[in-house]
Amino acid sequence: MSGEIGFVQGGTITTPRGFVAGATYAGIKTYAEDKLDIGLLLSNTPCAVAGVYTTNSFKSASVALCEERVKAGNVRGLVVTSGVANACVGEHGYQDARETTAVAAKALGLEPEQVVIGTTGVIGIELPMGLLRAGIPQIELSEDGGNRLARAIMTTDTRPKEVAVSFDLDGRSITIGGIVKGAGMIHPDMATMLCYLATDARVEPAFLQSALKNAVDGSLNMLSVDGDTSTNDTVLLFANGGADSPAIGPGASGNLFQEALDQACIHLTKELARDAEGATKLIEVSVDGADTAQDAHRAAKTVVSSSLVKTAVHGSDPNWGRVVAALGRSGARVVEDKVALYVNDVCIMENGRPVPFHRDGVVALMGGSEVSFRISLNLGEARATAWGCNLSEEYVTFNSAYTT
Amino acid sequence: MSGEIGFVQGGTITTPRGFVAGATYAGIKTYAEDKLDIGLLLSNTPCAVAGVYTTNSFKSASVALCEERVKAGNVRGLVVTSGVANACVGEHGYQDARETTAVAAKALGLEPEQVVIGTTGVIGIELPMGLLRAGIPQIELSEDGGNRLARAIMTTDTRPKEVAVSFDLDGRSITIGGIVKGAGMIHPDMATMLCYLATDARVEPAFLQSALKNAVDGSLNMLSVDGDTSTNDTVLLFANGGADSPAIGPGASGNLFQEALDQACIHLTKELARDAEGATKLIEVSVDGADTAQDAHRAAKTVVSSSLVKTAVHGSDPNWGRVVAALGRSGARVVEDKVALYVNDVCIMENGRPVPFHRDGVVALMGGSEVSFRISLNLGEARATAWGCNLSEEYVTFNSAYTT
Repeated sequence: MSGEIGFVQGGTITTPRGFVAGATYAGIKTYAEDKLDIGLLLSNTPCAVAGVYTTNSFKSASVALCEERVKAGNVRGLVVTSGVANACVGEHGYQDARETTAVAAKALGLEPEQVVIGTTGVIGIELPMGLLRAGIPQIELSEDGGNRLARAIMTTDTRPKEVAVSFDLDGRSITIGGIVKGAGMIHPDMATMLCYLATDARVEPAFLQSALKNAVDGSLNMLSVDGDTSTNDTVLLFANGGADSPAIGPGASGNLFQEALDQACIHLTKELARDAEGATKLIEVSVDGADTAQDAHRAAKTVVSSSLVKTAVHGSDPNWGRVVAALGRSGARVVEDKVALYVNDVCIMENGRPVPFHRDGVVALMGGSEVSFRISLNLGEARATAWGCNLSEEYVTFNSAYTT
Repeated sequence: MSGEIGFVQGGTITTPRGFVAGATYAGIKTYAEDKLDIGLLLSNTPCAVAGVYTTNSFKSASVALCEERVKAGNVRGLVVTSGVANACVGEHGYQDARETTAVAAKALGLEPEQVVIGTTGVIGIELPMGLLRAGIPQIELSEDGGNRLARAIMTTDTRPKEVAVSFDLDGRSITIGGIVKGAGMIHPDMATMLCYLATDARVEPAFLQSALKNAVDGSLNMLSVDGDTSTNDTVLLFANGGADSPAIGPGASGNLFQEALDQACIHLTKELARDAEGATKLIEVSVDGADTAQDAHRAAKTVVSSSLVKTAVHGSDPNWGRVVAALGRSGARVVEDKVALYVNDVCIMENGRPVPFHRDGVVALMGGSEVSFRISLNLGEARATAWGCNLSEEYVTFNSAYTT
């Protein structure tokens, strides 16, 4: 066994062995320049699939169907479409989701129950079934189709977001690849974070589910663009064993897999924050010394979500008062005179009070594309990190533009 | 007894009998045009005082001292200052708060323990005690000094915010007056909502406290400008019995008093939202038909706080998708196909699905200074209302301006 986890240059969801993907343009997504709008993913062999889904009460029928089939445990294929979310359309949404997977199953050589669906785009509009029926059979699958799939799930994302990491396990090289789209409710009614991951590791299904849940809790669930969650958010992880490695479960091999999965998910999370609408800076907030993990999570997420912290970062203002105010309302236990705060590693507050610092230097540091806050509560051992982005005038302009 | 509650034209905190107030400029607040920055309020006779305070962990020493003295039950006077918050300054904050109340007590002819303090402004800086010592004795108190007091608590507020309501109880006219300042974390480090209320009713102290808590829960606590709460938020209600009415407690008289207090607090809440930085529109979100009061509160507050709803209102966009997405993540129980949504009384969604509406007409309605959303969950009897404002480019510009 070996602990070396490395990023694969140019890696994507089809970098792991035994996965193929492809995409085409069916005329659904009319507003984006990169017009791929239907995609397919296939595991060449049976695989385990784990999923994490939106908690929004207005859940898309696509998500409900996906959840149901992943639970049944026989999934090998995925069909995605961007432009229409298939949410808030009543009973039709279920029928359309089922039919879309049936059309995709035929193209993939699978049974409908083996295919899940992901949709993103405008809500309140029905899926354009004619376009889907015509488009899906046109898709050509290949081992380097991951990038096309990454582009086919984009809505107002400005670029595809992909990752692959690899590590050795008992002499076998294992890869985890993934793609993600759009965090931040975006173009009017276009919400949705979709994240698809694949690995050629062989992983016990129960462990796969808990590893995915852990990874998402420490990455995508620690991301805040504007605090809104969509009707369609979905994360899936396909594990097909194509690397021919021993089965991974709880223990040393599982820890290594978890670490690699965490790194892949954190990479995609940071990519999402960087590409959020109107965003020009990635904000990272790390909290250490918290009493409990829950306290650390709350504190980090409350600070990174604060509109006032986000606007201060936008203006490169080392405004510790706003960080402290957000920390104070987070619900985490805080003892004022123990708190220390660092901006891009420069200490600006200690023992709960501001300390002299070279203001121009810190302002210059904050002018870069990554701004980090480290908050030491000095109470316990728990820690957490959250990610977000600056709040810009462009965000407001973009999201208030009236659309017909 | 009579149920008629009326607003008093030009009413303020000194409209109730037996209260005097005044303010002066001591040179503390250098950034505002209207430069009154120290104020005093006095009840001519002993009175009951109720208080509600910030829950932020970084609580100003001024708030801590205020809370302690209100609890002791012998308070008759108030000193306020704007420009410096007296927060995050360590042990000094307590000493300075105590000394300021001692100086004020001398000017008011009271004991220090009879005076409470409110401070708002920059945090991390100590109170300018020299200016306070020199300024407080200069203040002249009068029965029409309420407006000067309202101006003395302003920071980046653009106008004083005042109210008075009156009603008859057993032939005696009772008045409740109040003033409020700045919700929305404002100028860098200037946070704080301060709200002071006075009444000439005679009210049982325990009932006074519960009435104030109820009123705040349904008004100021349902206001969201940017989600941040400050280190200094304080609401106080002084009741001196100057109207010579029977004592008010639980029952019919208490219900009438509660209703009048609610109306006063809601009026001040809406004034705050209208005057929030960068705001041009008041947003009101009413939820009815919820299963529980908690569900109704959560739903209303989540929708009014959503950055995407706020930007949609800014752009006069009847974007039901964003309202629904916020509602769905609020934690309130929602059954999708029962939900109805109205924008300024026009139905745009029914049974969980969009309905045809005259879009241009609704857009025109949303162009006004008040935009209301009514959400009917059609599940139970509980209801709640929340207030907020549009999110504008000006908000971002204002809050990201780098200050030296």
